[in-house]
Amino acid sequence: MNGEVIAVDWGTTNRRAYRLAADGGVLATVCDDRGILSLAPADYPAAVAALRARLGEAPLLIAGMAGSTRGWREIPYVDAPADLAALAGGVIHVARDVAIVPGVALRGSRHDVMRGEEVQALGAITAGLAPRDALFCQPGTHDKWITVADARIHRFATAMTGELFALLRTHGILSGMLDAPVVDGAAFRDGVARGAGATDLLDAMFEVRARVLLGTLAPGDAASFASGVLIGADVGARGDLAGGTVHLLATGALAALYTAAIALRGGRVVAIDSAAAFTAGIHALHALLPGETA
Amino acid sequence: MNGEVIAVDWGTTNRRAYRLAADGGVLATVCDDRGILSLAPADYPAAVAALRARLGEAPLLIAGMAGSTRGWREIPYVDAPADLAALAGGVIHVARDVAIVPGVALRGSRHDVMRGEEVQALGAITAGLAPRDALFCQPGTHDKWITVADARIHRFATAMTGELFALLRTHGILSGMLDAPVVDGAAFRDGVARGAGATDLLDAMFEVRARVLLGTLAPGDAASFASGVLIGADVGARGDLAGGTVHLLATGALAALYTAAIALRGGRVVAIDSAAAFTAGIHALHALLPGETA
Repeated sequence: MNGEVIAVDWGTTNRRAYRLAADGGVLATVCDDRGILSLAPADYPAAVAALRARLGEAPLLIAGMAGSTRGWREIPYVDAPADLAALAGGVIHVARDVAIVPGVALRGSRHDVMRGEEVQALGAITAGLAPRDALFCQPGTHDKWITVADARIHRFATAMTGELFALLRTHGILSGMLDAPVVDGAAFRDGVARGAGATDLLDAMFEVRARVLLGTLAPGDAASFASGVLIGADVGARGDLAGGTVHLLATGALAALYTAAIALRGGRVVAIDSAAAFTAGIHALHALLPGETA
Repeated sequence: MNGEVIAVDWGTTNRRAYRLAADGGVLATVCDDRGILSLAPADYPAAVAALRARLGEAPLLIAGMAGSTRGWREIPYVDAPADLAALAGGVIHVARDVAIVPGVALRGSRHDVMRGEEVQALGAITAGLAPRDALFCQPGTHDKWITVADARIHRFATAMTGELFALLRTHGILSGMLDAPVVDGAAFRDGVARGAGATDLLDAMFEVRARVLLGTLAPGDAASFASGVLIGADVGARGDLAGGTVHLLATGALAALYTAAIALRGGRVVAIDSAAAFTAGIHALHALLPGETA
């Protein structure tokens, strides 16, 4: 059905909620840190009521980690390949006028899961921000690469890039060496070249320390080099990007670093506004649902 | 000169000291947790006196992290290629009848450093435990692979295998999933196959979680699979091991896991007693030093 809806991207640490008009336009937004880690399952009805108090009465359609084992209620994944209709078919009502979008599972020679990114990728296509055949990248703690063909998610991969950098920076032998800001410069690009396609990534990590000890890497450049190694390995794992386009669901410093690394691998980046992609995806899903709730 | 010597392998967290007879035989041993992390530079003279009170009066020849920036005093690395004579030439006296063996640095297309393992590798050859052309592996927090030709260390690599497993087990999204003991079985071997030669190791790490969520990896097998991925990546980075021999400086559970992974990559393992290798190396170095101190 059509009509207004509150679109909620309910993540692990953050939450973004948008009141959408019947035409999909954003009427109001709430962004806060009430991610699933801050909530027990019993807390969600009150959290929803509080959202409605701020955004108005409307059905809620939620995507993201709220549908995970650690969220409000586990919503079974739909299997790839999956388009918007498949996602709509897996939506489950968890309360009156509140429903949760399923994540997508990849089963076969590789196994992977996602919750939330699927709405952004397919929403970007719906909104005309990306073609129906596209490669998406959403960098972050767990970087997602999503291959879409004819507006259907065919396969995807999750890389532990951001988490690993954070672990190395905070714990272990490289801690204290990686505190400088990561910037796109010679050290970052050297790191990308070292990490891309490497079959010895475990060696490359230790080399950060060895290079500093031997004076071939300035201490202030160690963080940029180490980040380059990991982002280079991440981007390099996508195979030959030469001449290809990556649709990047990111902004800010991380977007700049991935844009540089992708360019070094011969690819081209189209930046996509994550919020526009997400709200377009929820608006399209909402239109595909039967009338009762969402 | 010849004569008795106290050989000390002074590591980051542990310390092993051996009173050696003039013929190199071990007369007495002290193993404890007085690694460099438990000592400030000013603490070493008293620590040496305490060792002598237990092992007797004799010159000390120390190898390992005591010669690092975080140890007693920084001893400059000797550059690879390096044999025992080159190590002996870099020994520095830090107190009366106390000297420290330098580590080895690799400079060039790759950069790496080690302190202590060089004595074990060259000592193994001296003791007849390995041929003069040999590949050594010393698994651990920072796994070392040392390529020796004609009893000279030509190149080596350090992989952050053990540290990374510990970080993933203790922190981040896989923590709580990796607490079971790691054993050589089907899950470990699947992990080795996944990790060996992989250019997408960051993806393979997240797959541990995805496989458990999707029910294709039993929760009790996750630690073995994850360890297999990392050890597989480590062993796989050494290139083609088919028909080759790896001289393994390890014992216990870690030795069994590396032996299995190396065999899966077509290699053959010869286990070498680390203590025998180390004491033989120090004994040989001691004989190469001028008389005054060591």
